[in-house]
Amino acid sequence: MSEERKIPYKIYLEESEMPKAWYNLRADMKNKPAPLLNPGTLKPMTADELKPVFCEELIKQELDDTTAYFEIPQEIQDFYKMYRPAPLVRAYCLEKKLQTPAKIYYKFEGNNTSGSHKLNSAIAQAYYAKKQGLKGVTTETGAGQWGTALSMACSYFDLDCKVYMVKISYEQKPFRREVMRTYGASVTPSPSMETEIGKQILAKHPGTTGSLGCAISEAVEAATTSEGYRYVLGSVLNQVLLHQSVIGLETKAALDKYGIEPDIIIGCAGGGSNLGGLIAPFMREKLRGEKGYRIIAVEPASCPSFTRGKYAYDFCDTGMVCPLAKMYTLGSDYIPAPNHAGGLRYHGMSSTLSQLYDDGLMEAVSVKQTEVFKAAEEFARVEGILPAPESSHAIKVAIDEALKCKETGEEKTIVFGLTGTGYFDMTAYEKFHDGKMDNYIPTDEEIAESLSKLPVVE
Amino acid sequence: MSEERKIPYKIYLEESEMPKAWYNLRADMKNKPAPLLNPGTLKPMTADELKPVFCEELIKQELDDTTAYFEIPQEIQDFYKMYRPAPLVRAYCLEKKLQTPAKIYYKFEGNNTSGSHKLNSAIAQAYYAKKQGLKGVTTETGAGQWGTALSMACSYFDLDCKVYMVKISYEQKPFRREVMRTYGASVTPSPSMETEIGKQILAKHPGTTGSLGCAISEAVEAATTSEGYRYVLGSVLNQVLLHQSVIGLETKAALDKYGIEPDIIIGCAGGGSNLGGLIAPFMREKLRGEKGYRIIAVEPASCPSFTRGKYAYDFCDTGMVCPLAKMYTLGSDYIPAPNHAGGLRYHGMSSTLSQLYDDGLMEAVSVKQTEVFKAAEEFARVEGILPAPESSHAIKVAIDEALKCKETGEEKTIVFGLTGTGYFDMTAYEKFHDGKMDNYIPTDEEIAESLSKLPVVE
Repeated sequence: MSEERKIPYKIYLEESEMPKAWYNLRADMKNKPAPLLNPGTLKPMTADELKPVFCEELIKQELDDTTAYFEIPQEIQDFYKMYRPAPLVRAYCLEKKLQTPAKIYYKFEGNNTSGSHKLNSAIAQAYYAKKQGLKGVTTETGAGQWGTALSMACSYFDLDCKVYMVKISYEQKPFRREVMRTYGASVTPSPSMETEIGKQILAKHPGTTGSLGCAISEAVEAATTSEGYRYVLGSVLNQVLLHQSVIGLETKAALDKYGIEPDIIIGCAGGGSNLGGLIAPFMREKLRGEKGYRIIAVEPASCPSFTRGKYAYDFCDTGMVCPLAKMYTLGSDYIPAPNHAGGLRYHGMSSTLSQLYDDGLMEAVSVKQTEVFKAAEEFARVEGILPAPESSHAIKVAIDEALKCKETGEEKTIVFGLTGTGYFDMTAYEKFHDGKMDNYIPTDEEIAESLSKLPVVE
Repeated sequence: MSEERKIPYKIYLEESEMPKAWYNLRADMKNKPAPLLNPGTLKPMTADELKPVFCEELIKQELDDTTAYFEIPQEIQDFYKMYRPAPLVRAYCLEKKLQTPAKIYYKFEGNNTSGSHKLNSAIAQAYYAKKQGLKGVTTETGAGQWGTALSMACSYFDLDCKVYMVKISYEQKPFRREVMRTYGASVTPSPSMETEIGKQILAKHPGTTGSLGCAISEAVEAATTSEGYRYVLGSVLNQVLLHQSVIGLETKAALDKYGIEPDIIIGCAGGGSNLGGLIAPFMREKLRGEKGYRIIAVEPASCPSFTRGKYAYDFCDTGMVCPLAKMYTLGSDYIPAPNHAGGLRYHGMSSTLSQLYDDGLMEAVSVKQTEVFKAAEEFARVEGILPAPESSHAIKVAIDEALKCKETGEEKTIVFGLTGTGYFDMTAYEKFHDGKMDNYIPTDEEIAESLSKLPVVE
């Protein structure tokens, strides 16, 4: 290990080396991601149609697929300096444990109170809302990682933040709720009596524990019916991938600083915000024919959009109030079984990543829940960080690739995204320790059933 | 703010700038801290007497009050590199919010899974246990911060780790327990049927929910009756302060790097491990007459050892199995009221710090619980980090001092220790948000009652 020591355990960029612009992956794509469609007319959504829902500057970012770089406003750069640069860590101890000749690096995004990379986009979205003179924003949250990040961001810009939290999470995961309240957000269990759609749902299903689809509908209604509010979202959208490019840009700068050339880049994928951000500058080189990286998306076997879904237009929400997006999808009705604790539960995938996958520019694998927690524990014990279940999907595949190198003797360089910490996921770890965690894998019939309800577009 | 920008938000030392030796504060003290006494003979404990309980190398560190620097073994330096250096953060946003001319810095020790500074000593103690060829170590834990840190450290050195966790915490705080299990520790609710003392207590009080004193007794018994085990402790002891000096040494190196001269240094104080570590190199200069820093210990009004306790020999545990220590104490029977959620519940204080306080080399203040949580929330909203309640005691007094500067117009430089994150303390935050938190302050009679049971030493 001693001659390697020139490369520190953790590479921190200097503040002066931090990215000053986000990179817009779509600018370098020959096949652009398909546009969002108006669910009524099935025509591409215009900026004007999106204005009641989204902030104006964010609509520009959402629709622009030609501008390669967007300058990061100084205020956002300043906020980034409070918790960034995120370290790029050389997993010396994991390598040693695995006895692999592979070199493993991970970009750790959990060094902030939100506990994940979500803050990178939350602060940007809050900034543009403030700049537009809005009073506040609305959003939905499931387990609460995105809601936490947005609450922090809104608190920083003194912006009101209304979070609709899926009722069962609100009741069963009170800690995330309290973090949001600490940052001054109002957190409402969804469905609620605060919105028309909430009242309708409660009238029809008095005992419902809520769903993400319902919470989205409430948040959108609250935004469009309140003066000075807009709706914000933490993944899937192009604008979110744009903001998250800060992950990849920092990673690449850190690698370049030490002359390290990665062979394989691995990220977990739910809606795609972390993966899209991590791979952005590497995919740029690949799109331009400069490099031939292997890029691997990892998804749960219980929610396998890439590996078993269909590339088609679909609803983004179960309430069907949002625009249609073309993406790898399992159908907007698809919900992973309740025993799935590993996150990454979204039925679809970012349009940008979907197009890249369809073009053969990246691979995808699905992994079983128990294997993910096994990898998480193995990682924690040697690297010290307690990983979020979501992040642990990437750990699992990084370990698999490192073990392949052990067999072949190849000294490959593997980089993966460690998106966050698992402090609020100890109930899932407990199930794993107690042998009460199993693996749910949907049948072909279940997926076919859900896909049969896709909207008909052309 | 712009001309200040030369000083980054976060000062990270290079790996090459990290401390290579711990600093032993006692070496520069004219009045040495009083020795531990054998509770039977009332004579100073010898190394031989301590051997059945502690590791040999740690006994040397415990008893040595003349050697100024102890080299940090390479293996520990390597482990430190996995989560250190800890950043020294300039609290630009807090300063702006307070509109103070003061410059505020905090040393943030929460960037590791254990969530606090406890890991700095845990890894050292595990290392020496491993080096001595032991199978494992035993310890007690209350809320679980120390137990978590020790579990991580033992996992790294492949050492068995038995944690006796106060039963009520074991049941009410399952998340910390699961973190320990993730790192492979065995966690036993105390009192248990695994030890003689546990059986005795359960026979006498069948429904007891346990106490720290009882857990200590069980952990000590388990260590002394199992082949190849020793007992370890996370605070109070001289050896722990020695290891924690890494906090202060890094802080001073970071300040020196940018030519920053602190006026006031603030730390929270329970048993004293964080405070003793943070102030070590600054106190050195003060002891040598080179500098005149103000050093402030902050303790909860509900457990005010410094400000309302007595400087005397006392038992370190309620079970009275451990050596006697001379310290500021409230009496080993003293237990803060159950409504106290802010940690720092130990009845006594490190002997080293007690002597320094008695010599007038540092100040102490006590603060009320609700004020602490108010400061915690104010800090979180602008600085982004969700602080542990313990750490928030220091935040409260740092804010108070910064506000004094605002009145006087003085541009003082304030440094405080932010020992950890509050992810596992959301129940306390919830009480605070719901207005259900109150302030318990012991009466003079209660303290006198508890102090009346001090052991008679000469």
